[in-house]
Amino acid sequence: MSSSPQPTPDPGRTGASELIADALAAVHEAFRDLDEGTVATYIPELATADRSLFGVALAGVTGSIYTAGDADSPFTIQSLSKPFVFALALMDRGLAEVLEHVGAEPSGEGFNSIRLDPATGRPPNPMVNAGAIVTTSLVRGDSEEERFARILDLLGAFAGRPLDVDGRVYVSESETGDRNRAIAYLMHSAGSLTADVEATLDTYFRQCSVLVTARDLAVMSATLANGGVNPVTGERVVDEVVTEWVLAVMATSGMYDYAGEWLLRAGLPAKSGVLGGLVSVGVGQFGLGLFSPPLDARGNSVRSVAAAQEISRQFDLHLMHRPDRDVPTLYRSTRADRLRQLAHRTPSQLRRLRDLGSAISVRAVQGTVEFAAAETILRSVDELPSPLPSGERWLILDLHRTSRVVTLGAQLLRGLVARLQGQGVHVVVVDPFERGLLPGVDQELTTFEDAQRWCEDRLLEAARAA
Amino acid sequence: MSSSPQPTPDPGRTGASELIADALAAVHEAFRDLDEGTVATYIPELATADRSLFGVALAGVTGSIYTAGDADSPFTIQSLSKPFVFALALMDRGLAEVLEHVGAEPSGEGFNSIRLDPATGRPPNPMVNAGAIVTTSLVRGDSEEERFARILDLLGAFAGRPLDVDGRVYVSESETGDRNRAIAYLMHSAGSLTADVEATLDTYFRQCSVLVTARDLAVMSATLANGGVNPVTGERVVDEVVTEWVLAVMATSGMYDYAGEWLLRAGLPAKSGVLGGLVSVGVGQFGLGLFSPPLDARGNSVRSVAAAQEISRQFDLHLMHRPDRDVPTLYRSTRADRLRQLAHRTPSQLRRLRDLGSAISVRAVQGTVEFAAAETILRSVDELPSPLPSGERWLILDLHRTSRVVTLGAQLLRGLVARLQGQGVHVVVVDPFERGLLPGVDQELTTFEDAQRWCEDRLLEAARAA
Amino acid sequence: MSSSPQPTPDPGRTGASELIADALAAVHEAFRDLDEGTVATYIPELATADRSLFGVALAGVTGSIYTAGDADSPFTIQSLSKPFVFALALMDRGLAEVLEHVGAEPSGEGFNSIRLDPATGRPPNPMVNAGAIVTTSLVRGDSEEERFARILDLLGAFAGRPLDVDGRVYVSESETGDRNRAIAYLMHSAGSLTADVEATLDTYFRQCSVLVTARDLAVMSATLANGGVNPVTGERVVDEVVTEWVLAVMATSGMYDYAGEWLLRAGLPAKSGVLGGLVSVGVGQFGLGLFSPPLDARGNSVRSVAAAQEISRQFDLHLMHRPDRDVPTLYRSTRADRLRQLAHRTPSQLRRLRDLGSAISVRAVQGTVEFAAAETILRSVDELPSPLPSGERWLILDLHRTSRVVTLGAQLLRGLVARLQGQGVHVVVVDPFERGLLPGVDQELTTFEDAQRWCEDRLLEAARAA
Amino acid sequence: MSSSPQPTPDPGRTGASELIADALAAVHEAFRDLDEGTVATYIPELATADRSLFGVALAGVTGSIYTAGDADSPFTIQSLSKPFVFALALMDRGLAEVLEHVGAEPSGEGFNSIRLDPATGRPPNPMVNAGAIVTTSLVRGDSEEERFARILDLLGAFAGRPLDVDGRVYVSESETGDRNRAIAYLMHSAGSLTADVEATLDTYFRQCSVLVTARDLAVMSATLANGGVNPVTGERVVDEVVTEWVLAVMATSGMYDYAGEWLLRAGLPAKSGVLGGLVSVGVGQFGLGLFSPPLDARGNSVRSVAAAQEISRQFDLHLMHRPDRDVPTLYRSTRADRLRQLAHRTPSQLRRLRDLGSAISVRAVQGTVEFAAAETILRSVDELPSPLPSGERWLILDLHRTSRVVTLGAQLLRGLVARLQGQGVHVVVVDPFERGLLPGVDQELTTFEDAQRWCEDRLLEAARAA
Repeated sequence: MSSSPQPTPDPGRTGASELIADALAAVHEAFRDLDEGTVATYIPELATADRSLFGVALAGVTGSIYTAGDADSPFTIQSLSKPFVFALALMDRGLAEVLEHVGAEPSGEGFNSIRLDPATGRPPNPMVNAGAIVTTSLVRGDSEEERFARILDLLGAFAGRPLDVDGRVYVSESETGDRNRAIAYLMHSAGSLTADVEATLDTYFRQCSVLVTARDLAVMSATLANGGVNPVTGERVVDEVVTEWVLAVMATSGMYDYAGEWLLRAGLPAKSGVLGGLVSVGVGQFGLGLFSPPLDARGNSVRSVAAAQEISRQFDLHLMHRPDRDVPTLYRSTRADRLRQLAHRTPSQLRRLRDLGSAISVRAVQGTVEFAAAETILRSVDELPSPLPSGERWLILDLHRTSRVVTLGAQLLRGLVARLQGQGVHVVVVDPFERGLLPGVDQELTTFEDAQRWCEDRLLEAARAA
Repeated sequence: MSSSPQPTPDPGRTGASELIADALAAVHEAFRDLDEGTVATYIPELATADRSLFGVALAGVTGSIYTAGDADSPFTIQSLSKPFVFALALMDRGLAEVLEHVGAEPSGEGFNSIRLDPATGRPPNPMVNAGAIVTTSLVRGDSEEERFARILDLLGAFAGRPLDVDGRVYVSESETGDRNRAIAYLMHSAGSLTADVEATLDTYFRQCSVLVTARDLAVMSATLANGGVNPVTGERVVDEVVTEWVLAVMATSGMYDYAGEWLLRAGLPAKSGVLGGLVSVGVGQFGLGLFSPPLDARGNSVRSVAAAQEISRQFDLHLMHRPDRDVPTLYRSTRADRLRQLAHRTPSQLRRLRDLGSAISVRAVQGTVEFAAAETILRSVDELPSPLPSGERWLILDLHRTSRVVTLGAQLLRGLVARLQGQGVHVVVVDPFERGLLPGVDQELTTFEDAQRWCEDRLLEAARAA
Repeated sequence: MSSSPQPTPDPGRTGASELIADALAAVHEAFRDLDEGTVATYIPELATADRSLFGVALAGVTGSIYTAGDADSPFTIQSLSKPFVFALALMDRGLAEVLEHVGAEPSGEGFNSIRLDPATGRPPNPMVNAGAIVTTSLVRGDSEEERFARILDLLGAFAGRPLDVDGRVYVSESETGDRNRAIAYLMHSAGSLTADVEATLDTYFRQCSVLVTARDLAVMSATLANGGVNPVTGERVVDEVVTEWVLAVMATSGMYDYAGEWLLRAGLPAKSGVLGGLVSVGVGQFGLGLFSPPLDARGNSVRSVAAAQEISRQFDLHLMHRPDRDVPTLYRSTRADRLRQLAHRTPSQLRRLRDLGSAISVRAVQGTVEFAAAETILRSVDELPSPLPSGERWLILDLHRTSRVVTLGAQLLRGLVARLQGQGVHVVVVDPFERGLLPGVDQELTTFEDAQRWCEDRLLEAARAA
Repeated sequence: MSSSPQPTPDPGRTGASELIADALAAVHEAFRDLDEGTVATYIPELATADRSLFGVALAGVTGSIYTAGDADSPFTIQSLSKPFVFALALMDRGLAEVLEHVGAEPSGEGFNSIRLDPATGRPPNPMVNAGAIVTTSLVRGDSEEERFARILDLLGAFAGRPLDVDGRVYVSESETGDRNRAIAYLMHSAGSLTADVEATLDTYFRQCSVLVTARDLAVMSATLANGGVNPVTGERVVDEVVTEWVLAVMATSGMYDYAGEWLLRAGLPAKSGVLGGLVSVGVGQFGLGLFSPPLDARGNSVRSVAAAQEISRQFDLHLMHRPDRDVPTLYRSTRADRLRQLAHRTPSQLRRLRDLGSAISVRAVQGTVEFAAAETILRSVDELPSPLPSGERWLILDLHRTSRVVTLGAQLLRGLVARLQGQGVHVVVVDPFERGLLPGVDQELTTFEDAQRWCEDRLLEAARAA
């Protein structure tokens, strides 16, 4: 077990964040002695893998990395390159062009399935060898050298460090890759692979021979978790929408013929590799990288699958888990707040404000403003006190406790503002973060007190004018 | 376009929530004239469906329902019963027993695929006919009548109203259901279906003939979105974990051989039916119910798919979308807050507190406390000011702006509390919602001011004692 | 070892025909101790079969029956009913109608394959369960009882004795026949099976439960070998062309996924059954019936296959074996024959005949007149001696040694006669069997001497007239 | 229409053999205008084929060749090379070794099926591309050049003339042969193809590009019909048993997914090719070669299939056709024969012979002596007249009218001779062809009269001695 970066010893040091490394270490400990499965032998270079190796690494979208076990043992990336090169192909060609060459459907078959779509000639998805060969061919490059250089750069950008090829494995792959050759020629014949077959295979074999560690895989998947920005280096590696496409395909097809049950049990997009590697993504949270050579009958790493499922269970990150709503969307100001506000007014102002008071409505919002919260806000203003005889009505939207306003929430709130203003309601927003979420409002202020006073001042002005 | 419930006209009425109905109406309008696809004719009763019908309904987890078009046209539920009866089987038998009889893998084939797992004899998943027949057989009941009664009750509980069977369709299904009979006998022969074949099929055909509307489907899927509690009736229909399993299987297998591309594009679990119905679930947000008879080549409703994808796009709810983090996890109190607190102290207290002040640390947290937020908090207390010579150190965790603390977040914070207390740090929590998230803390208070004062009082006491 | 019928001892008796029974007994002896394979257990009634049972029977098209081992042990006919009921369906419906419902293609799959032709919905061929169920449904009958009665009668007619159903096996089949039910409903759904499913299955299960012995199977297959006429009873059971169709389908599909290698090795049409029965047909020669319960991995009886291949090898009956041509098609009369003929003429006749002699040509034919022989004959008369000045030319076709003239041979010879007569050549045929093969000839006589004399008389007459 | 060789006009010429050419011309005429199907375009060089081309050729095992239509138009041999190269592989490696690499089962799929046996990795049979590539690789040769030279020599030996490669088609095949490359690499990966992939494919593509005509194909298939001896050149090309194996595989797999129905309808082994060529074999009779580019949906030449089926129908050569038995196996001498024999005896000899006569039995056999005939003979001597008091008994087996004695018949007759001699019966054979079929007999003579006299002389001698 190790944690990174290593903080310096210090009298004030609590080492609080070691809790995470401890949790990871506990999972590693729990499955270290699970000695089942067999080591892949499909190329000679692989069969020598030490079956006791077991590394676990977690990289947060915060850029922190935690590891346990053999997280720095290098091995060739093999199938784990597939989602990342798929991302590169999507960057280079766009979704529509990529989908002309490779499907996005789970195949219900193993990683080296040879079945193409009878109508389109496309391989089923980019997570099986056939589809991965096609996505490799879709990476742009004026030469095969350039194409591979771009792939190697991309994998390095995902990992946050330059990566190298294991030359012996590459040669071994190339010499024994007859089934992949068969698949590639079949796709060339069917029209889904249009690039030169041998050159594409050569690039594919080199891509599969890139050396990584569990730590690298954690950072790579954390980059997917983080919307395409490497959380360690801060580099944007791919567009955010590309990460969504990649993760969706990982969710349905990343674990071969265990994909469905994996999503049911672990609830996270993941991809496994023939050498015992596994990446899994807690969207917006972290990336996991695991490595342990012995494989189960479906070709997934026994220890990696067990550990990843346990982490998923402990971290409660199932994609289908309904976010608990701990606090109500709307809250009321406390009496103490109210008293503080009134302290700023003269007695006569207070008297007039009491008469006009119902003209100022307040909706104080907290939590995330997604569909359900926005709908709650909308419903809460379906009826407001009737306007003053002068026609004046005020609404303060206090967003200072909202942690997040999703696109849809912002849209609905903007629609609300427009509708209310159309009905003569003045809208004032409170946002200490000055996020400018609702550009058209009458006023945006950073504290509720300021907003309250601003509205009252306008009211008093209007009353004076009347 | 219609909205429900209908608010009474009123001078104060703004009709703000009509914004949602308007959005739905716009989507309905956009695809109403998309006149492609063919109407299913596999049983005579179905072929008479009016191809112009098009209904859209959305039910929020708040219990509100919005509709557009023919949302109240009844049709038989057919394949859309599958996820709900799967849920019932999971309630009755548990995941392990259900998975002995039916897999959870996408099949890459159509809804009436006859392929069973060669090793286990199981149908691929509960979303194809074969798997659905098995899940129907797993519903408990002392008699076939009781079994069907429980299914009908369950569908009604999901929909929030009693449902009925269309007798003519049932008879028609039963008479023409030879392929389903074939599938059922095959599974009986393979051992995955152990119940009586004809009785199970009879129940299955009746289950498929239950009449629903797009509105019903919206409520049914909103119940899945809401963790198993019907948001309209408030009834818990199934356990929350069951909804996660059902939604995971819908995500990989709900749209037949379009499942993968659907998840890529729409990003939501969904299920389509042969009559043109479609349900889609915004987890924790809402359920969609759509209905339009003409089907595309894969058997999915042309208009329903187009409308659901558009809604998904507009509502920005792709499962793989990284939640935007609008606000930092930690925030600092404003100077005004600070000034207000100090107003309660005598000058000598203030003087002594200034000397001891560094002994009280504050971490004010906002937003959702998931892994990344919790990690940020942990890191932020990796180092605290050195303890007083008396050994005293205080930490105030101000959670009053946290909207949600996920299981993992609470676990990590509880671990943090235990670790800090083990190092002699006193921990005080501020939570106006009194959620009791961190049971072991030294004190839990509802406002930061109270917490601050409480700590200061303890400090002053300790200083006095020293 | 036994032979049938048993001749009575007699001083003149040589027992020559025991040679055949001895050969059979030797084959039986050779494989009796081949104790490999497993006994089918797919219905409970079958699993009790005695694995040591081994019966061999051979029935000649002459009506003789030879047996060795347990040739009189009864067992249920199961799959061995398929070719015979296929024959009945062909009799009842004709080839075209039958082929609308079932294909004639080898499937490359096992006996219980569920794969139907995607375009036509037809099962691949009548030798797998699916196709056999369809052929059963095509047998005519006003009621299911009548249909089965006709099947039972037919099987009895093939066997040469009334057959019965094993009631316990029938019940067992019916109760456990879910896979067959599945197949039948699937075909009903696909339109290839149009009869009532359950009634058809009931008949099929009864048909499979008919009790036979290896001896019965030998007679049944000898009936196919004999062009549809039971060689023991003399009854015509089916038309000759029907036997050709049945045997062709047996040749490509009778041995399931061993069909191709079987035909390569054994060279005979055959059909195996799940209880260890096997029929094999030496077309025009004999039928074999074998029985031994233990099956190999492909479901064929281990001992039956070994014994049938050995018999085929010994009897040298490979369908693709080129018939040896032991004797030349044309032969010359011996000088002795010639002398005898001349003894009947006066010296002056002999003198005149010597002058005219070249006007009479002779072609003496022996063996089978098929294509190659007919072509040899034609070529041999491409040139004849020039006609007499009077225009007279004679050709004697001496067929007295031809054992067989196939349709094609007769056609070509008839064409030859017409062509020669058109050129003024008189044609005389010698056929002691008076087969009337060449109806248009000038004269047909039973001995060459008569023909010679007849031609000479005509010649002499013509010379006189000149 | 043309016939070959062309006889010189002559007063005596009847042109009788033109009858065969006329029959062929009539078939050609009947289907010449059948303008259905589409021309293969899978490589550019092929798409230019003239769809009106239609050639028919028939080569007898006698060495005669008949043709009609475009029988001398050259085209590349393509798939029609498969049975012949399979034959070469069988010559080079033997059946057992070849079957380790390629199966003999019909696949139920098209010519370019990619399905390998999951257990063995073997392609289904040598008549589909996959299997043909393997058989090509099994041809011996120290270099790829030598291997191809041997294939080209073999094809030439089958055709009876040196053949050449169409260089442009070869290049085109090689460039567009990706599906074959895929198949080859797949088999190399699965272990069924052990030779170098690219070298094997190069040879295969060259083999497919060999130019032939319908006339060539007729001679090639006539060589198969003739047990491996080219009937035109007289050269033995392959062993007879090899032709049986090749023809058996053609029978079950030569016509792709029409193989079963073809055998049912045409009753002859055949092989079709993608350019519209077709060979079909009348075992022991003739070979057919046809050519017409437009193909039906299964890839078989429309006109070639129709014409070959018509020829098969007219020639009545269905493999499953029971040979008609025109004449009884046993015949009795005529009274005239008997009288002639007695003319050689003195009155006293005649008197004594009358007393002893029953000691000489005669069995005069005609036709083919296969199983049924042999069995008839055996049964006919199950009882003989009791021996003379001296123990003498004689049997004359008159075989002078037997056209053919198959192996089994000879075996049974030899067994009969041994058995009878063991019982003191002297056996005399009459065989004008002096075939030596029954080496152990007491005497073999060329005429019945001689045999009769010989027996009588022995009898008289014995009587004298008594």
